[in-house]
Parts: sequence; C-alpha cells; structure tokens
Amino acid sequence: MLKKKIRIGIIGYGNLGKGVELAIDKNTDMELMAIFTRRPTESIKNCNNNIRILDINMAQDHVDNIDVMILCGGSATDLPIQGPHFASLYNTVDSYDNHGSIPDYLEAMNKASMGNGKTSGVCIGWDPGLFSINRALFESILPQGATYTFWGPGVSQGHSDAIRRIVGVKNAVQYTVPKEEAVKRIKSGELAELSNRDGHFRQCYVVVEDGADKDEITNKIKLIPNYFADYETNVVFVTEEELIENHSKMFHGGFVIRSGWTGNNCSNNNISEFSLKLDCNSEFTASILVAYARAVYRLNREGHIGVKTVYDIPLKYISNISIEDLCKNLL
Amino acid sequence: MLKKKIRIGIIGYGNLGKGVELAIDKNTDMELMAIFTRRPTESIKNCNNNIRILDINMAQDHVDNIDVMILCGGSATDLPIQGPHFASLYNTVDSYDNHGSIPDYLEAMNKASMGNGKTSGVCIGWDPGLFSINRALFESILPQGATYTFWGPGVSQGHSDAIRRIVGVKNAVQYTVPKEEAVKRIKSGELAELSNRDGHFRQCYVVVEDGADKDEITNKIKLIPNYFADYETNVVFVTEEELIENHSKMFHGGFVIRSGWTGNNCSNNNISEFSLKLDCNSEFTASILVAYARAVYRLNREGHIGVKTVYDIPLKYISNISIEDLCKNLL
Repeated sequence: MLKKKIRIGIIGYGNLGKGVELAIDKNTDMELMAIFTRRPTESIKNCNNNIRILDINMAQDHVDNIDVMILCGGSATDLPIQGPHFASLYNTVDSYDNHGSIPDYLEAMNKASMGNGKTSGVCIGWDPGLFSINRALFESILPQGATYTFWGPGVSQGHSDAIRRIVGVKNAVQYTVPKEEAVKRIKSGELAELSNRDGHFRQCYVVVEDGADKDEITNKIKLIPNYFADYETNVVFVTEEELIENHSKMFHGGFVIRSGWTGNNCSNNNISEFSLKLDCNSEFTASILVAYARAVYRLNREGHIGVKTVYDIPLKYISNISIEDLCKNLL
Repeated sequence: MLKKKIRIGIIGYGNLGKGVELAIDKNTDMELMAIFTRRPTESIKNCNNNIRILDINMAQDHVDNIDVMILCGGSATDLPIQGPHFASLYNTVDSYDNHGSIPDYLEAMNKASMGNGKTSGVCIGWDPGLFSINRALFESILPQGATYTFWGPGVSQGHSDAIRRIVGVKNAVQYTVPKEEAVKRIKSGELAELSNRDGHFRQCYVVVEDGADKDEITNKIKLIPNYFADYETNVVFVTEEELIENHSKMFHGGFVIRSGWTGNNCSNNNISEFSLKLDCNSEFTASILVAYARAVYRLNREGHIGVKTVYDIPLKYISNISIEDLCKNLL
C-alpha cells in the first residue's frame, strides 16, 4: 500500500517560495498542492507547470487538502500578519528572522495555532534555526567558554537595498565578510571580546548613474547609520555588466564556533564549530523549511500543538528515515 | 528557594569518569553524590576530596539519593553487562560506541529501563552522538548529496594497543589522520566515492626494546588486519622520552560534512559541516554525558521512559537555560 504523502502549500512565491517548490521535489514523502501569491496569478511562471498558482485570498479555502502551509513571506511586514492568520487555519512552518521581535512573534503564533489545534514551526532557517541549535548545544556541553557567530562571506539583501536608495546609485551588491584576523584568533582558542562589527567588514560593489560623484556616494554609504557607519566598509565602483557578470549569485554562509574549557583549572581547550557554505541562500533555507514541515505534520498528528522552535523538535521528526534505520545506519 | 540539584553518580573511574567528575563542577544545577569503582577504593585519589569513592558492588544501594547514573565503563566488555544492570535501577546515560552492536544494545537498554520506569540515554558521545545528530540533520535537509565523516587528527587507543602487543615494542601511540587531499576534494563540493580508508592514514610513533629489529616491527604493524593492513601506515621510531614529551596528549577531533545539491537540475552546491578540535577527548565526551544527564532526568520526570538516543531528545531538555531565555537570547 502506498503511504499517503504530506500535502504542502506555499504562501508567497519569491526566491524562498521557488526554493520550496524545488525542494519538495527532492522529498519523496511530500507533494505540493498549490502556490498562493499576491501577484496576478497569470503573470507567474513556476518551475513545475503541474502546480496550481492561486490568489492568496483563496488560501483559506484549502484546509481539507493541505497538511502544512510553508510561509515564504518576508519577516519585516509579511509574516507578522500572515503568520498568525495562517497559523489559525493550517499547520505552518516559517523562517521568521527578525531577532529582536522573536518573543512577540512566538506568542502571537502560539496563540493562533493553539486555539485551533494546529502546530507552527517558527524561526526555522539557518539563523535563526541551524545556528541556534548549535549555539544552545555548544553552551550546554561546554558551560565555560565563549560562542561566536560569523556570517558570510555572502550577499546581504538589506544592505544592498540601503545602498540602492542613495541618489545617483543605479545598482549595488553588498557582501558581509568575516575578518580573517578575527576568525584566526577565535579558531586558535583565544577568548576575545568580539562584537559583530569587530568580526566583519562590508564589501560593496556599486553601479552609478553617468556623471555621479563617486566620492560623495562613497561617503554617503559609509555614513548610513546601523548598516555601515560602525563597520569597516569598502566601496568599489563597477559597470552594470561587471555587476551582473560577477555579483549575481546569492551565495552565503557563515559559522557558529564555541571555544570552551574543560578539566582541572580549565587546562584543556575544545573547539566546536558548525559551518555552512551555500551556493544559494534561499534554496538552502527552503530545504530546511521543507524538512521541518515533515516534523510539524508529525507533531500535529501526535497532538503536539502550538508554537515549536528548533529547541522543541527532536531530530527523529525531521528525518524521512525511520528511527530504527537512523539508529542502525546514522547513529 | 533554592532549586533542588540533580544528583549524579559515576560508574567507573577511568579517564571518562574523571572527566565527568570535573564537568559536573561546571554545571551549577548538578551535584556529584558518589563514584563507584571496581578497584580497591582506598587506592583511588579523585579530584575532589569531598566526593565519596565506593565499591561498585554498593552501587545498587543508592537508588534513593542518585537521580542519574553516568556509565563510564568501556563499550567492549563493561557496558554490555553494566548498562542493562544499572538501567533497571537508575536513570542512566552512556557513550556506548560499538557501532555494529548498537541495535542490540538499544534493545537491551530499552527492556531494562522500560521495565522499571527508568530512562536511559545511550550512545551519547561525539561519535556516536554529536556526529550522529549532524549526519541525520544534514541528510534530512539536503536529500540529494553525500555525507562524509572524518576522524582525527587524534589518538586512537585501540590502534595504539594493537601495536603495543607486538613482541619487541615497549610503547606506542597511533594517530588517525584525515588525508588532506581527500578533505580538499570533499570541501570543494566533489561527490567522491570515498571509503574510510581512502580518507585517512595512520601515523605510528613506536618505542622498541634494545636490539629489536625495526624493519621487522614495521612490517608486522603494517600487516595487522583491519587495524592497519588496508590503510596507508607510517611508522616512526622514537625514544621513550620523546614519546612521553611529544605524544602524551589525548587530543582528538574530526568532522561530518555533507555536500548537497539544490535547485533546478541540482545547479547549486551547499556544504554543511560540523567539526570538533579537542585538546582532551575524554573530558569533552564527559561534558556531553553530563549535559544529556540533565535531559534524561527531565524526560524521566515527565514520564518519558525507556531508551533514548540523540534523535529522541529535544535540545530544550539538554540546556540549563529556560526555553524562554533560549528563544530570547540564543535563537
């Protein structure tokens, strides 16, 4: 007898939603039922022609044939509204990443899902998500020590956008890059006092309008508060062609590292590290969402309702391999 | 009001047991009640004079004042007997690492603990343990790809012992070392067919008796089946003083890496890696056991009895930080 597949829906069809569509194809226990979008549905060409593209206003009408809705909207304005709305109708999973507002988001999602017997996996990308797992795991194992998170080298969409808003700028790509010197110190076991800005610099590739004043634009970029003002920032001007040719890939990555001490008088240093090197940030994040959609589905079937983070979910729920085979082959 | 501490007992006082004693000191929510040993108790000097050293035959008499027993015996002959025995009396945690016999051990431990309402965390070191977590996590997220585990550079006790048994050998230390060439290929995203022996070589430092035939000993080492015969093995002869001076540290490490593909036609490569660089193998393994002893204690209080591996246990049970603070500060 064929096992029933987990029926998935996608809310939002940007880079992340496209990544989810592709990732579902790689998981034999799932099927994609529909993609919901705010844009005119006839304007959208998706990867697999057999998948229905529907208006987001119809998303509430599919509760009987979608097991888990994967929320692919942005954290700034989409998820605070869409999250609780859909969590009251469906099991959901999302990669909400506005670190400062996580407790509020958790509360809203818990209320929405709990009230309707649904399960919501929230903040499940790579940071927050996989990096969060390792921060907690490392600190539990090595209580004496220090944890550092480095992001990049990789494209930061928010920082690229901030540059593009400057008058005279046609296009821009900003890379967040860990400082080699800082990384070397941490990896050698040094317990350095290191803020995010001590550990990273910002590399900008900028295309300007004809006749724009490059020095003025450079100064303006370096003065943007929060984004650049406190960081070491390097600006390079390139042509539109060079930008497209050399800076179109959405690669990213980073690592969490803990340097911890064990033994009498803390004589021994032990370094744990979790790292990612991603050709495609959005496709990798989408792959995480899809694996955790499986967990959310199973948790809900077992009656575990309400909000769940990576701290609540055992690995056996995430894997498509039976617990017996996990123990036999991967333990 | 002071929160009641988790009361720990240690079975077996070798390197691992000593590491557990030291690790408990670093966890403010735990206290060590007693250490049980097979050796004459008066012969043992432990790190903290206030801790009682008792004969292992008395270990069954402390069920009222020990919450979790941490089993620090060896996997070859100790744990197969001690594990089920103590799992029927206490909540336990161990780092059983005989990969081939894991299903049998799981079954025996489940039967013993289940029958008496106890909880047993098994196979919880770094491999099996942390590496197992990452093998399953990576394969769940990136179903299309390949996983590789590299061990070392580090001391292998079993291989060192095998050399010491050769006539004419006074002492020896064997390092398992990942092959740089293989590591480089994998880290570049290549999906190589790679057995353990393709990825590692064996570096041996050997002290011989006066007048021993070094060439003959070298040949004998290289011919030991399973341990050396199929590996690239390098033998270096040193003096007893050099061995003690340069090869006494129990460092180890290694990494799990998955190279996985996402996107249309698998056009994007994404590399996930978990790595350890340990000054002291036994102290780090002990630190993992202690963190998971917390989880076993909590799981049992909530009625989750029977055998548990790293695949069954959510992170919130392992951490000494409340779930609210985890979500606020580490997510």
